Amino acid sequence: MQGFEIISVDSHCPARVGVLHTAHGDVNTPVFMPVGTRGAVKGITPAQLAETGTVMVLANTYHLLLRPGAGVIQSLGGLHRFMSWPGPILTDSGGYQVFSLATLARVGDDGVEFSSHIDGEKIYLDAEIATRAQRRLGADIIMCFDEPAAFPCEPARLETAMERTIRWAKACKKTHRKGQQLLFGVVQGGVDLRLRSRCARELVKLDFDGYAIGGLSVGEGRENMLETVEHTAGLLPADKPRYLMGVGTPSDIIAAVRAGVDMFDCVLPTRNGRNAVAFTENGPLRLRNASHIKDARPIETDCDCCCCRNFTRAALRHFFNVGEMLGPILLSIHNLRFYQRLMNRITQALEKGCFDRWAKEQLVRANLCGCPNKQGAGT
Amino acid sequence: MQGFEIISVDSHCPARVGVLHTAHGDVNTPVFMPVGTRGAVKGITPAQLAETGTVMVLANTYHLLLRPGAGVIQSLGGLHRFMSWPGPILTDSGGYQVFSLATLARVGDDGVEFSSHIDGEKIYLDAEIATRAQRRLGADIIMCFDEPAAFPCEPARLETAMERTIRWAKACKKTHRKGQQLLFGVVQGGVDLRLRSRCARELVKLDFDGYAIGGLSVGEGRENMLETVEHTAGLLPADKPRYLMGVGTPSDIIAAVRAGVDMFDCVLPTRNGRNAVAFTENGPLRLRNASHIKDARPIETDCDCCCCRNFTRAALRHFFNVGEMLGPILLSIHNLRFYQRLMNRITQALEKGCFDRWAKEQLVRANLCGCPNKQGAGT
Repeated sequence: MQGFEIISVDSHCPARVGVLHTAHGDVNTPVFMPVGTRGAVKGITPAQLAETGTVMVLANTYHLLLRPGAGVIQSLGGLHRFMSWPGPILTDSGGYQVFSLATLARVGDDGVEFSSHIDGEKIYLDAEIATRAQRRLGADIIMCFDEPAAFPCEPARLETAMERTIRWAKACKKTHRKGQQLLFGVVQGGVDLRLRSRCARELVKLDFDGYAIGGLSVGEGRENMLETVEHTAGLLPADKPRYLMGVGTPSDIIAAVRAGVDMFDCVLPTRNGRNAVAFTENGPLRLRNASHIKDARPIETDCDCCCCRNFTRAALRHFFNVGEMLGPILLSIHNLRFYQRLMNRITQALEKGCFDRWAKEQLVRANLCGCPNKQGAGT
Repeated sequence: MQGFEIISVDSHCPARVGVLHTAHGDVNTPVFMPVGTRGAVKGITPAQLAETGTVMVLANTYHLLLRPGAGVIQSLGGLHRFMSWPGPILTDSGGYQVFSLATLARVGDDGVEFSSHIDGEKIYLDAEIATRAQRRLGADIIMCFDEPAAFPCEPARLETAMERTIRWAKACKKTHRKGQQLLFGVVQGGVDLRLRSRCARELVKLDFDGYAIGGLSVGEGRENMLETVEHTAGLLPADKPRYLMGVGTPSDIIAAVRAGVDMFDCVLPTRNGRNAVAFTENGPLRLRNASHIKDARPIETDCDCCCCRNFTRAALRHFFNVGEMLGPILLSIHNLRFYQRLMNRITQALEKGCFDRWAKEQLVRANLCGCPNKQGAGT
């Protein structure tokens, strides 16, 4: 029952329309997953989230392991009930946060010992433990424990991290119980295409339910990122879903879909929303600006979100100006709706057979007007 | 068209069921109005607010005058559009906040000069200016500019404040344009029943659309408060709505309805919600307590709010523990729904003719179990 089905592939590029069948429902791809780090998309109720057109969400194993703990969530009936999200959920493995947030005590070929960024508690994580923790959380898709490398990274360290990622993927595969949870491998290797090739080749041999491209959007720059995505996506089996982790701006997503990527997650819509920056067709709108004080227009006239249907830019500016919670809430909702509408437009272009041309136009336009490429810049 | 209609009066006490006809719809009384201080009920969208059963909301003129300004709101089409609240709205006069938040520069018989608590800007407010500002905001019910006294207060000062309140009420009445906005007088006089009597008598002569009892719940204690409410409500015309400002706990509301009060506003449900304290039939529930870590129950089994229908106490405890916005949001929604369900129970008891007995039982129960009387204590 669970698995991936390709509906159509574009005739000019590897972009495709698909359906991901999960234990908690079907997901049309390409799909964007909002980030519910600690069991909640910040400030948004599940009903509001569903209204944005969201079908699938991501939660972070690392954060949930620290608080409230995988055992607590399991005893409460699993992550779906805990978050009150009846649809599909994906959990990452915790690797990214361990290497970016925690204080590392010891990284070995077997696993990682680190101190929690909350209270300094010493924790040990390896492929087996991370996979078991994700089993207890009970997401529909779980990820192999991996070691992403920072950017820039010494070639030798990058290679070690990549080799460990392969080793750990084997251990995850061994620990994983075939059943309702799909297990994805994560390709690492920084922007070194040779390392990416080796990692992809080894992971594909292990026959995962899907493949993620990890370790990007960490400072390597857009060109390097897209080159790596195009290269790596091409090495992954066409009949399995491809997931680009933690990316990105609207134009990053369009470019990656064009390279054959099916799944995305990113904190940009919610983080920018909390920081008073709205995504729009015409580029970013900074709601704190005094120019909005008397502006009776919605953020976007043609947007159907509850923010645009009900509130003026002036009211939003006021909410941010006085520190009302409703500012971040409404703008996060708008930005998520913007992303979901973007995914709808991508899918429609694919279904109409005009995606490649449409995508090129969008990417040129983004470069010309400095948006939506640079939406995330400086926020 | 606008005005008050009494549907029924209890046979054992002055409690009554009524309908308040406003330019933005009818309001069944007794009514509880959530507080949207700066144009938003903290953390709650209008759709979520309507779902709690809320029909009418309050906004604070003082806060809106400072930011974004009455002129800005008027230019955007008024407060209803600004807040995106299509139902009835009441604004207070600003008097309470001027005397409690601002730094007073000069209080005279004509008006008050004060410094904004935001940026120290010098502002002058008097009856005429406050009434005009409320006209610009465009609420359905506006209040006379008054001088509430702190508790305790020197008898001479209390009397001066009360006399000014009468003088200013006359000026407000003169400035007020008969039309869509109803104007309420505010009875002051602290807990001095003689002063309350004089103030009520003078205001009643001016024939307002309704009468508020102000200056209570400022430290005078529950017994003094209820004695003052009973005394004052009895002096106000039976055919006009009576509004007890800024009060209170569930048992305060039950007792005041029993004294013939029709309208209430209070920050307790939202403030307690933000502070992780839930209102329940069985008294306050402190969601930060470790006892909730694995508690799979909702806050209240029989509550139909989106918090109780979807989230466990364990999840709420987690949200507060990690600082997720969803904790304050969900608990504010639950507490508002608790208050609106309380108002429904009051109305049902009145309609069934058993209110007086029911109210006595509730008040005894509240005293016995220390709840919901003491819900607000220490939070």
